[in-house]
Amino acid sequence: MKITRMHGAGGTVMQKLIKETILGNLENTSVNGGIGLESLDDASTIPLGDKEIVFTVDGHTVKPIFFPGGDIGRISVCGTVNDLSVMGATPIALSLSIILPEGFDIENLDKIMKSINEACKEAEVSVITGDTKVSNVDDIIISSAGIGIVGLGNAVRDSGMKEGDVIIVSGNIGEHGLTILLTREGFEFESELKSDVAPINGLVKSVLDAGFKINAMKDPTRGGLADSLNEMAEKSGLGILIHEDKLPISNEVQFIGEALGIDPLTVANEGKVVMAVRAEDSEKILEILKIHPLGKNAKIIGTVTSEHKGVLMETLVGKRIVDTPLGDPIPRVC
Amino acid sequence: MKITRMHGAGGTVMQKLIKETILGNLENTSVNGGIGLESLDDASTIPLGDKEIVFTVDGHTVKPIFFPGGDIGRISVCGTVNDLSVMGATPIALSLSIILPEGFDIENLDKIMKSINEACKEAEVSVITGDTKVSNVDDIIISSAGIGIVGLGNAVRDSGMKEGDVIIVSGNIGEHGLTILLTREGFEFESELKSDVAPINGLVKSVLDAGFKINAMKDPTRGGLADSLNEMAEKSGLGILIHEDKLPISNEVQFIGEALGIDPLTVANEGKVVMAVRAEDSEKILEILKIHPLGKNAKIIGTVTSEHKGVLMETLVGKRIVDTPLGDPIPRVC
Ligand SMILES: Nc1ncnc2c1ncn2[C@@H]1O[C@H](COP(=O)(O)OP(=O)(O)OP(=O)(O)O)[C@@H](O)[C@H]1O
Ligand SMILES: Nc1ncnc2c1ncn2[C@@H]1O[C@H](COP(=O)(O)OP(=O)(O)OP(=O)(O)O)[C@@H](O)[C@H]1O
Ligand SMILES: [Mg+2]
Ligand SMILES: [Mg+2]
Ligand SMILES: [Mg+2]
Ligand SMILES: [Mg+2]
Ligand SMILES: [Mg+2]
Ligand SMILES: [Mg+2]
Repeated sequence: MKITRMHGAGGTVMQKLIKETILGNLENTSVNGGIGLESLDDASTIPLGDKEIVFTVDGHTVKPIFFPGGDIGRISVCGTVNDLSVMGATPIALSLSIILPEGFDIENLDKIMKSINEACKEAEVSVITGDTKVSNVDDIIISSAGIGIVGLGNAVRDSGMKEGDVIIVSGNIGEHGLTILLTREGFEFESELKSDVAPINGLVKSVLDAGFKINAMKDPTRGGLADSLNEMAEKSGLGILIHEDKLPISNEVQFIGEALGIDPLTVANEGKVVMAVRAEDSEKILEILKIHPLGKNAKIIGTVTSEHKGVLMETLVGKRIVDTPLGDPIPRVC
Repeated sequence: MKITRMHGAGGTVMQKLIKETILGNLENTSVNGGIGLESLDDASTIPLGDKEIVFTVDGHTVKPIFFPGGDIGRISVCGTVNDLSVMGATPIALSLSIILPEGFDIENLDKIMKSINEACKEAEVSVITGDTKVSNVDDIIISSAGIGIVGLGNAVRDSGMKEGDVIIVSGNIGEHGLTILLTREGFEFESELKSDVAPINGLVKSVLDAGFKINAMKDPTRGGLADSLNEMAEKSGLGILIHEDKLPISNEVQFIGEALGIDPLTVANEGKVVMAVRAEDSEKILEILKIHPLGKNAKIIGTVTSEHKGVLMETLVGKRIVDTPLGDPIPRVC
């Protein structure tokens, strides 16, 4: 069997590879009773005293490396910060492993590093270690691991939603993926569309600091909201019912998605969070999210139920199944 | 200015890129008063309670990915474990960011994962998080970040050697680099040479557990022992005098090095440690090292002096300067 693009595209094909070939071969997958690799959550944890160290990593091969709204440097910081944030952790430190092709412009590396610096200041994290290699790659690759801290036992899992919970998404979906596609293919759309890439730690913190409990949380990256909701449903053993007319989607994304035949539910976001919260807290949490610039389009999109498994969507013409995509339809999206 | 191979080869060319373009652009480079990126040590630290979290990363693009003595999986574990070990830390957790080319054999990924598993068991570390992407690369790339723990204030720096200290290297040098070169180029040497790739945490621990203080320590990877000794000298403001006839070099490495015109002092090791220790402890530390299978060829190779800067080597025909190499002579060595 050979690797195909789909093995790196964040859907069922990749999940199978990770479960069988990667996780299936590893015996040491957790430390000190913390959340281990077998949870396949956004990050894992290591209990230490009255805290847990939260640890995650993402590799970035986005093409093109500069795009409206961001670049590979900004994604490298935000992707990792966001995986820590959806664990309820405070992100503190990043590592940067950079792979460069021969002939790469040092001026472009300089631009990328400046962008990394800006994103780090925005997210209040530090780059404390790194590595640099030159290899046979078509463009720069940046792999950023990250460390965050959370109180012992306070990590938010992606498996924790409860029957009756309300599902909130923090803003318009599909913008990152469609921006990458438009930029790369040189489509002739006149478009103002840009990537949503941003660090969501401040946004998540505003909810947690107000004393609300978040039962489950993910950042809907590769595979989009469809992938994240399915994972939350599967891991909790419950179902999710969302409402098409409540999904925050800009007219532009709607139009471009339809024109290209790509469902915005399945494409990557890089500055969004989806959470399951208690019904009685949901309106207050929505208000808090809307105060933050990154949450101004936040919406309640559905509820958690034990009446079915998986994800269903109420549409004008009845309910349809929202499946886990085989993979994100846009290659090299992040 | 364009990136060349040398920018990823671990010598002065790479150091300049890191200092100017990478470190030079970053404002947030340390956390909580810990050892930060500006130290350019093997790893950085984050104080937390009565401990320090130690954090490091290495990207691996070694070619070929399977070679006598190891493979890219084993290097990915050991490289990161070793950077944590030379900080005096106990390595506990790794992340694995894997970049795959389309068409890569899943059976080979399976072999690599099995090798990662074996190395993790040897080093007593766990893989707790990872990421998988498919991109335009000529072979698999693995970037492994790692977390270790050390008592507050107990991290061993690469800058800490003192006048009168003795320099010990834990075994034969040059084996990894020359193995890679021989394997890649299909040279016609009949050779038993294999890579030394191994986790050195147990070896270092045996010295620290015996209560000895190590003043400075590094793992002599890209750029070899020449690079590490120069860095230790420069950062301490002192000089090192080593003795050619005391360097642990196998006859085979000596012969191949001479045949190919490559100085074993400048090529990568993947299972060695070089340390500066108090003269009065040096014989006892040497004995402890020699008990461990990975330390059986350990040798005292020199001393620390204030009489000159940099690294000098006493040879049959007098002293010569051992410079920091521009870069490791063997590309894609790790
Ligand atoms: N190469 C790998 N080695 C070990 N674990 C992996 C590897 N690739 C993925 N995983 C694990 O699989 C789970 C899913 O990974 P995935 O990358 O899809 O999550 P994510 O980072 O939240 O999403 P994205 O990468 O799209 O931002 C995570 O728990 C991750 O740690
Ligand atoms: N891309 C990068 N971003 C941030 N810091 C970097 C980067 N590349 C290297 N560094 C820092 O520069 C210093 C030297 O890195 P280097 O990779 O040479 O160390 P090493 O890992 O000990 O050696 P090797 O990679 O040969 O095993 C380290 O402190 C490292 O954190
Ligand atoms: Mg995630
Ligand atoms: Mg992620
Ligand atoms: Mg390195
Ligand atoms: Mg090192
Ligand atoms: Mg290293
Ligand atoms: Mg990931």
